[in-house]
Amino acid sequence: MASEKPIVVVTCTAPVNIAVVKYWGKRDEELILPINSSLSVTLHQDQLKTTTTAAISRDFTEDRIWLNGQEEDVGQPRLQACLREIRRLARKRRSNGHEDPLPLSLSYKVHVASENNFPTAAGLASSAAGYACLAYALAQVYGVDSDLSEVARRGSGSACRSLYGGFVEWQMGERPDGKDSIAHQVAPESHWPELRVLILVVSAERKPMGSTAGMQTSVETSALLKFRAEALVPARMAEMTRCIRERDFQAFGQLTMKDSNQFHATCLDTFPPISYLSDTSRRIIQLVHRFNAHHGRTKVAYTFDAGPNAVVFTLDDTVAEFVAAVRHSFPPESNGEKFLKGLPVEPILLSDELKAALGMDPVPGSIRYIIATQVGPGPQVLDDPGAHLLGPDGLPKPAA
Amino acid sequence: MASEKPIVVVTCTAPVNIAVVKYWGKRDEELILPINSSLSVTLHQDQLKTTTTAAISRDFTEDRIWLNGQEEDVGQPRLQACLREIRRLARKRRSNGHEDPLPLSLSYKVHVASENNFPTAAGLASSAAGYACLAYALAQVYGVDSDLSEVARRGSGSACRSLYGGFVEWQMGERPDGKDSIAHQVAPESHWPELRVLILVVSAERKPMGSTAGMQTSVETSALLKFRAEALVPARMAEMTRCIRERDFQAFGQLTMKDSNQFHATCLDTFPPISYLSDTSRRIIQLVHRFNAHHGRTKVAYTFDAGPNAVVFTLDDTVAEFVAAVRHSFPPESNGEKFLKGLPVEPILLSDELKAALGMDPVPGSIRYIIATQVGPGPQVLDDPGAHLLGPDGLPKPAA
Repeated sequence: MASEKPIVVVTCTAPVNIAVVKYWGKRDEELILPINSSLSVTLHQDQLKTTTTAAISRDFTEDRIWLNGQEEDVGQPRLQACLREIRRLARKRRSNGHEDPLPLSLSYKVHVASENNFPTAAGLASSAAGYACLAYALAQVYGVDSDLSEVARRGSGSACRSLYGGFVEWQMGERPDGKDSIAHQVAPESHWPELRVLILVVSAERKPMGSTAGMQTSVETSALLKFRAEALVPARMAEMTRCIRERDFQAFGQLTMKDSNQFHATCLDTFPPISYLSDTSRRIIQLVHRFNAHHGRTKVAYTFDAGPNAVVFTLDDTVAEFVAAVRHSFPPESNGEKFLKGLPVEPILLSDELKAALGMDPVPGSIRYIIATQVGPGPQVLDDPGAHLLGPDGLPKPAA
Repeated sequence: MASEKPIVVVTCTAPVNIAVVKYWGKRDEELILPINSSLSVTLHQDQLKTTTTAAISRDFTEDRIWLNGQEEDVGQPRLQACLREIRRLARKRRSNGHEDPLPLSLSYKVHVASENNFPTAAGLASSAAGYACLAYALAQVYGVDSDLSEVARRGSGSACRSLYGGFVEWQMGERPDGKDSIAHQVAPESHWPELRVLILVVSAERKPMGSTAGMQTSVETSALLKFRAEALVPARMAEMTRCIRERDFQAFGQLTMKDSNQFHATCLDTFPPISYLSDTSRRIIQLVHRFNAHHGRTKVAYTFDAGPNAVVFTLDDTVAEFVAAVRHSFPPESNGEKFLKGLPVEPILLSDELKAALGMDPVPGSIRYIIATQVGPGPQVLDDPGAHLLGPDGLPKPAA
């Protein structure tokens, strides 16, 4: 039996994912089981990631968690569900007679510190990355190697899709106990190397309604949502999988836009109605359709989650022209903030024909900045002890 | 046989109607047959009406039409369909052996002049009133007393609902020839005397997509629309009829809002998506929900057609408070234009509790003005020859 260390510390990173067939609505609020399957694209951690350090020690007196440097309430139900589930899996592993490399008592408390490399105010769904990272880090600590979908899901439904890189499906499952409601990879991150993702971060207006409450109201009040989930999504999942496997960008793009619009349609069919799309969102939609019409085919495709930010998919040969089109229609405020972040994009001039085709009155400042990224890998363990967010005392390291 | 007059002139007025169960989508583009039934409220002609003069003479060399003083293209297919249909009915009447009070030859040409007492730029659907008025006026001229639904419908689908006052249903019908696709009155204008209608005319932004093209694209691309029409509207029609007959404002209001939202949801589910609701529309929606939440029940209800203007239903005991709430949240620009038109509304002060409940940042000028009106009667014949818009020569009278 290996000697017990006073503290075990593991640091992982996990990605953000963007659904192209949307999840909206639960059939079980406690187990976080969805009313339909969903499919997402994992974004590259060079641009967007959560880093989580999990530390376990017999010297800790209580579970504690710090998010972006601030201590948060560890009693929060989703967090507790996540911790309970990973401990259950660890207990099960031991009772199955596995040799335990880290024979920590499951009664020991855990300290967790988590940080994003992207601003929370950007409104980019960070709970998926955060809970995936937590699940993954705790699994490392406890030596759990079984499927982590349930651990991540209990924190935040779509977090299970952040457990893999590339293209990921969250199968809704049929069992009431949710054991078959799991994520799995549809295609790896290397599958479609030309694919690019542009996140258009829109200036924050009002804080949109949170998705937990929003989707609950939608399930309760929208007949269109029920029909979507039962009659439309299954075929869309099959078609989206085909589009990805065959790298059919035109079909992928059109279905992505249609599914985003249909999700927002069910929000409007909710009572009271939910509007996540702002005037800026609608202008971005218009820009994309005009850009595509000018080129005579689907070259860029938008999708919107429960907020005004646009995620635009395109291929690498179109990035420069589309970014130029965005700059032209949504000129950046000259406030010193970098307008283009992430992967480098070549500045090019727009043709006069395209400018005429876009025909939109410029709206300065309504897009704060763009993050250019691509498809990326799943969670990673960091081997460098310098990466730990917690010190040997289990407390957050002072800010650098 | 009565002597033939050189010219026969008839002037009628017809109302605007606002659907509370929406029509959106045709199953037959030529006969203008809808994919679902619809139900509307006829507005009072004191505030909104079309006046149409129809003149027939053997001296006219061609059909001609003037709208709001401007001569328009009489070859326009909808207009031609309307004229053909009324002439067909007139022919049928004669062949049935009816004594003809006005034995005009059906080969004589017709001159039509039409005016609205509300501005076209207000974006209030005037084609319903216009075609209903045309159908009604021509029916007077030709002595046609059969159902005019088809004549009006061939001009503009919802025009058949403007053939009656009060509350009107347009039954979709089942026959391919559309003979059973007719409007009929559900309840007369005197049925619900406390009901009031406030039209919030929003500042014009972009010209919205026309409804003919819009609904065609929706039928072609939206699975949610198909489901709505087949599975949801029939029950809504029955429920809305009940609400009206029982004067159940709470249920009437909630269903009205839900149907407006569902219609707009199907527009968003269209590809490319159609957005008729502007940011101002959404703020009005928010205002209504907060106003109702403050009072603990549904006291006002919005509905939006294919444009940003809001039509708000309420009872007479709530008009003053709601108008004050609108003024507070959407302060009028002080440009000399009257903010409140139509029925008089008592100015009152808002309570501090209501102001706090509304909690919205004022947006000056985004509502241009309000028209306060009520439920009204169907088309009328004007007996006063001074009301004719065409002179004895069949040409528009000079502007007064």
